[in-house]
This record gives sequence, C-alpha cells and structure tokens, in this order.
Amino acid sequence: MKKKNKKVNAAILIIGNEILSGRTKDKNIAFISNWLNSKCGISVNEVRIIPDVEKTIVDNVLILSKKFNYLFTTGGIGPTHDDITAKSISKAFKVKYEFHKEAYEILENYYGTKKFNDGRKKMAKMPRGSKLIYNPASAAPGFITKNVITLPGVPSILNSMIENCKKYLIKGSKVHSQTLSLYTVESNISKKLGLIQNKYKKFVEIGSYPFFRLGKIGVSVVSRSTSLEKLKQVNKELLNLVKTKKIQILKI
Amino acid sequence: MKKKNKKVNAAILIIGNEILSGRTKDKNIAFISNWLNSKCGISVNEVRIIPDVEKTIVDNVLILSKKFNYLFTTGGIGPTHDDITAKSISKAFKVKYEFHKEAYEILENYYGTKKFNDGRKKMAKMPRGSKLIYNPASAAPGFITKNVITLPGVPSILNSMIENCKKYLIKGSKVHSQTLSLYTVESNISKKLGLIQNKYKKFVEIGSYPFFRLGKIGVSVVSRSTSLEKLKQVNKELLNLVKTKKIQILKI
Repeated sequence: MKKKNKKVNAAILIIGNEILSGRTKDKNIAFISNWLNSKCGISVNEVRIIPDVEKTIVDNVLILSKKFNYLFTTGGIGPTHDDITAKSISKAFKVKYEFHKEAYEILENYYGTKKFNDGRKKMAKMPRGSKLIYNPASAAPGFITKNVITLPGVPSILNSMIENCKKYLIKGSKVHSQTLSLYTVESNISKKLGLIQNKYKKFVEIGSYPFFRLGKIGVSVVSRSTSLEKLKQVNKELLNLVKTKKIQILKI
Repeated sequence: MKKKNKKVNAAILIIGNEILSGRTKDKNIAFISNWLNSKCGISVNEVRIIPDVEKTIVDNVLILSKKFNYLFTTGGIGPTHDDITAKSISKAFKVKYEFHKEAYEILENYYGTKKFNDGRKKMAKMPRGSKLIYNPASAAPGFITKNVITLPGVPSILNSMIENCKKYLIKGSKVHSQTLSLYTVESNISKKLGLIQNKYKKFVEIGSYPFFRLGKIGVSVVSRSTSLEKLKQVNKELLNLVKTKKIQILKI
C-alpha cells in the first residue's frame, strides 16, 4: 500500500518543577522536535510543561496520548522521591507498577550487586508491559508504554537514547522547510505574503519571523511542506515579491 | 485583612509553529517564570506550546484562563497572516475584534501617517475592552483581556514590556528557594531526602537534579517555600544528611 503524504504527529510532555520555575532552561523540546521531524517525518503538534504532581501527570498522559500518535515524556525517572513519572503512567493506564526484569538486570549489572541500592532499584520499576529504550550514557533505560515514550530529563542522557526510540515509531512524510531571510520589515510584505499563503494553504505552511542581526532588522520567511514541488512554487512567488519590492536578500 | 501565604498562579501559552518545529528555541518561558516569581510572587504551574491555529488557541485560552489566576500568551501579535492571537482571544471571549483607539494612535504616531500601512494597522486590533501593555522597544502594545496577558514572541521586545504588566497583577507570597549542590549521586541520598520531603511536605517542595561539572557528577538539591523559617529547618536537616554521609559540598 502506497501512502502519499502520511501525517504522523506527536506531543511532548515535560515533567519537572525545575523547568516551570524557570530555574532550568529546557533543552529537550527543540532537540526532540528536530529529531522527530528530520529522522522520522513526525511533527510535534503540542508541548506541555507540568509539575511533578501525580494527578497532573496522569491527566496529561491520558489526554495527550489519545490526541496524538505518540507522546514523549521527559523527566521524573530518576531515583529520588520527586521521580514519579513511571508510577504515574502506570496509574494512567491502570497497569501494575513493577520491576521490569531486563531493566533490573541491566542496572544490577551496571552498578554491581553491592551498590545496587533501593534508589537505583527504583529505576527498574515501570508500567507492566513496557518495552525498554536502552541508555548508552548511564544505563537506566527509558521505556515505551502503549504509545507513550518515556525519557529522562537530563539532555545529554536523553540525546544518547533518542536513536533507540526509532524502532518503535511509524514514520511519516518528511516535512521539508526553506527559509528566506530578507532585510525588510514584516509589514512591507505582510499583504502579499498572506495572499501567497492563502493560495497554497492546503500544501504549504508559511511563517514570518522578525530578526535583528548586526543592528539591522529583517524577516525570515519559513515555508514548510511535505511536497518539494509546492515548496519550489512558493519559493518562486516569494522571490518575485522580493524583486518587485526591491528587497535585499540576506540568505536563501 | 491579613493574608498569609497567598498563592497566586499562572500559566504560559506559547503560540507559534516555529517553537513547536524546533526551529526556534524558546527563551520566554524561563524569563516570564523567573520574573513572575521574583517580582510578583506568582508561580507558573503549567506551560503549553501550540501552533498558530485558531481553534487550538481559542480552546487553550479558555481552559488555561479558567484554571489559573493569570494566563500569559506569547507570540502571534505581529502584522502578518500567521499572527492570529488577538483575533483568537476575541473569539474565545466572544467579544469584538476591533481597533483599540489608543493603540491605533500610538502606532500611527510611531510610524507616521504615510508609513502606517494595513499590516501595521492590524497590530492595533484587539479584543474589545482590552487594556494596553506599553512597548518601549517597538511601540506595538501588548494587552490584557480579562485575566489573559498577551505579549509578543520576540524575547527582547517581551523583556522590555514585562514591567508594564505589573500594575495588572495581584501579588502572591514570594517563593524562596535555596540550592545545595553536592558531589554525590542521587541514589546515595534519595532515601533520606524522601523522608525529609515527607516531613515538610506541607511547606517545602524539595527537588533533586543531577549535574555534570568539570567531569564530576553531582546533585543539586533545590528547596522552595514561601516560609523562610521552614526553609531554614530543611536546610539544617540537609546539612546533617551531608555530614552523616560525608558528602563534599560544592555550593550552598
């Protein structure tokens, strides 16, 4: 069966008081989103950041896992009292929160029997039926429960694990993007840009983002589409607009 | 009426495809959250990032403005076709989307009558009854509609406007925080930390965050509370734990 333009989407749920309070700046959203789009053709359609509160995690896991093809969670799977993600996902799906045999073995082997204390053992507990996502950086695995992929919050560890998620994901059509950076102001092109967007609204999503570079004001026009053909057509129209308005191009 | 420990909370709604796609890294969440906490005693309890889609904006504005004392939105108030935040908030609250007289005058004055084109005029349209949040950086004002504060997405502009939000906000009790950075691993302190958290659960929120610094592994224990007294007590217990376990302190 040949499927053209297959849309697969995902949401990201960032679990952690430290991100909400502003103490820690999130680095995972852009990383996961870029990886999903470039490697799997999956678009992230919603992100939520919530505190380490069981009911809040349960509610959000249920809502987002239903609404999107995949849900990625980050944070809350370490050894301390505030790490309640695995337990909360078990509650959400009404499955037992228990030791995962292979995860237990991986961690016991990594730490050695003597240093395999209660905190570390906790990292082997997950929702029954979960499959492991191996962790080459620090052993403690992530896991996938139904369509929910659970990863740690520490960016370097998460980054080391992301490729191991691939085998669980159905791929979608890659969204191609092109950026045209112009030395102009948004209001100078907004009218014509709106017309072009309207003409191609079924195929191409056009965004306009102001920038400041070396004291000069500019606009980056970003077009995104699963069709390279339509993207080319939009590009041609944009370049016409640029020519008519005599706008200086910074970068194509 | 003397109110002790007054909790005021907020949510942030980041509106913009460019953040969801990972093209642009968000810088506003940590900034707004830190500012709200330190200057207004307001805690951010939820953040959502959503695309420039009217129905999605309407739904999220209604849900979050009802659930929290304040909702801050960022993004989507410029002159181009993808700037639909103001119109969407009007729809959400079923009020007219129209020119705001003072905003119109500010913008006309800023650009001059000749250069005040349709795109720029659009930035003076907002939900009926909104009050302005002045913009010292680039004139186009933000606005507050009921308990929803609408700001632009460009961080430098948003930063320049944030102090002008203050007069519309009821202040809460400031949440104090203390960080104890230790050269140890989480699992070494997780058990005792859990007991301390449990003892003070009504007053203090304790989080534990691993870090890597110059090749050494460590844990930052962050305690947060509106009560400095309780925070002191927790600190004493933490220092006892550190002493018992003979853990090296990096920073108090």
